[in-house]
Amino acid sequence: MAFESKIKTIEWVDNYSRMVDQTVIPYEYKFVNITDGEKMFNAIRDMIVRGAPAIGIAGAHGVVLFAQEGVNKFDNREKFVNWLIEKAEYMKTSRPTAVNLMWACQKQIDVIKASTSDIKGIVDELKENAIKLENEDIEINKKIGDYGAEVVPKGATILTHCNAGALATVGYGTALGVVRSAYAKDNTVQVFADETRPRQQGARITTFELAMDGIPVTLITDGMCSYFMKKGMIDMVVVGADRIAANGDTANKIGTYTVAIAAKYHNIPFYIAAPLSTIDTSIATGEEIVIEERSREEVTHINGKIICSDKVNVINPGFDVTPHELIAGIITEKGILRPDYNKSIAEAFKAV
Amino acid sequence: MAFESKIKTIEWVDNYSRMVDQTVIPYEYKFVNITDGEKMFNAIRDMIVRGAPAIGIAGAHGVVLFAQEGVNKFDNREKFVNWLIEKAEYMKTSRPTAVNLMWACQKQIDVIKASTSDIKGIVDELKENAIKLENEDIEINKKIGDYGAEVVPKGATILTHCNAGALATVGYGTALGVVRSAYAKDNTVQVFADETRPRQQGARITTFELAMDGIPVTLITDGMCSYFMKKGMIDMVVVGADRIAANGDTANKIGTYTVAIAAKYHNIPFYIAAPLSTIDTSIATGEEIVIEERSREEVTHINGKIICSDKVNVINPGFDVTPHELIAGIITEKGILRPDYNKSIAEAFKAV
Repeated sequence: MAFESKIKTIEWVDNYSRMVDQTVIPYEYKFVNITDGEKMFNAIRDMIVRGAPAIGIAGAHGVVLFAQEGVNKFDNREKFVNWLIEKAEYMKTSRPTAVNLMWACQKQIDVIKASTSDIKGIVDELKENAIKLENEDIEINKKIGDYGAEVVPKGATILTHCNAGALATVGYGTALGVVRSAYAKDNTVQVFADETRPRQQGARITTFELAMDGIPVTLITDGMCSYFMKKGMIDMVVVGADRIAANGDTANKIGTYTVAIAAKYHNIPFYIAAPLSTIDTSIATGEEIVIEERSREEVTHINGKIICSDKVNVINPGFDVTPHELIAGIITEKGILRPDYNKSIAEAFKAV
Repeated sequence: MAFESKIKTIEWVDNYSRMVDQTVIPYEYKFVNITDGEKMFNAIRDMIVRGAPAIGIAGAHGVVLFAQEGVNKFDNREKFVNWLIEKAEYMKTSRPTAVNLMWACQKQIDVIKASTSDIKGIVDELKENAIKLENEDIEINKKIGDYGAEVVPKGATILTHCNAGALATVGYGTALGVVRSAYAKDNTVQVFADETRPRQQGARITTFELAMDGIPVTLITDGMCSYFMKKGMIDMVVVGADRIAANGDTANKIGTYTVAIAAKYHNIPFYIAAPLSTIDTSIATGEEIVIEERSREEVTHINGKIICSDKVNVINPGFDVTPHELIAGIITEKGILRPDYNKSIAEAFKAV
């Protein structure tokens, strides 16, 4: 049973892309209309849109925007196609690490190459494909949500870390998709959200989007999780994933691993919610996942103000890896994968 | 071997009390001279001085300041004594929860009651006693530091949470006393400091005081501890304590319990450093320790700015209890107490 979320992070409207401006959350909830390709490049680069799936769709929209501009620039179909593919390749470079961005821009390039239509027809096909990708993202999340909801106990309090929500995707979310589907069945379900230092996505984004959808949410600091687990106030943990290895080891926002250890200590099930596209079967274990080191300022400053001695050292890993033995299940659009993950992941990919 | 710390948090000088103004750390390091009793009451209430042991000494100084004022007010010894005891009782109320404050003011009342001197003589005896309490605090911390240093491996990286440092005591510190003594023997020792949300005492105070003493310190966010433990970068954990039960269960700043669980998971020894006065043998287990709930703004706001949806719920426990089974040892001025704590604590008190 799907929950009706108020949030659509990014959407194609007539002849432009409309997106939630994530740079001003939680202070404001406003939309930005992106009307040309270069502006979309900048919107992705400047993180007006964030979250790998959302960025992917933004890239696909950007290609449509360039195509619309090309209609007025070119009479020659071949020149139009060559120019547009170049623009699509350029769009891929608006952010360096989001695999979904490359993937979605490539999907548009495939449409261009396969098309037998005229210039105007290509634009229509790209628009259609962008909307299809949008809808698929939400459909996948709703499936993840519905599978996940089956393992949410009645009246459960679900702890989550960071933001794997509607605002990281086109809509609905992965970890928060599970929350939404569970809440639709049982409105006594509630969420505890970790602040998620250093970038505070839990405080800034997760509390915002759940409050907006009217789902009860309690903000806690990252160190508090064990306190509430011991008190019996947390029934399960669900988080998203940035990359999952073939054995189930899962890279996610820094701090996830600490929550997973605390959950294990208190015998609380810890779930990952992610589409199959997050699983990288070319990687045998989490050991092979390279962890991005981010800037010292994310740790030493909050809202532009230093919070510590300026003589301090900082190491700021953006992600950590939760080993598969701490994970009760991986909730995907094909169902919940269970240990042994080497087996269950391989089977899920066979079924695709 | 004692380390020479640059920090003396509070000190009696001639006829006034000089203290580090903790409200401006880490932005400024400045001293405030408190020259009368009423100003000391305000300084304690407004948290210019913080940390239970430091507040205790501040209270003792406050009684001396009132006594100095009384010299000019009274010719009659009996009237002076009655007035001064009243002022000392008043000083006890400047903060509600710091047991050390009541204890130190009472020590001064005991001096007044036991004295056979004239008015001037009583003032001198109170001054002398305040300085004695000051010195005892540092001596106890140095003993804790030296005992603790014995279990610090060569070149160790010590993780700590919150601030149990020179700035929470008269000087030297308890958990950071262990760091100072270890560093004096081996200057390859270094510290990882948890930020310690919500109030960020690790970021604001621990990094500041270690940088000031030239001891290498790396700031991490609270969720990162497990990441560094897994990488083999943390050799031991040492934290302070707010109250220790007869069985070794230890209340300390919120987030401590999460660190203790992570340390256990990675087989890293987790120590408490605290004077025997922190052990409350009237309490059998940590279950009996009442946890103070603090304001929602500590979680929702940083430096006066909201960081989340204003519709969020908040629960803000100030402390948590780490069960004795996660504690490798309790480092006191009488040596390191080991499990079974019921036994080792009882023996330590017999020896006092």
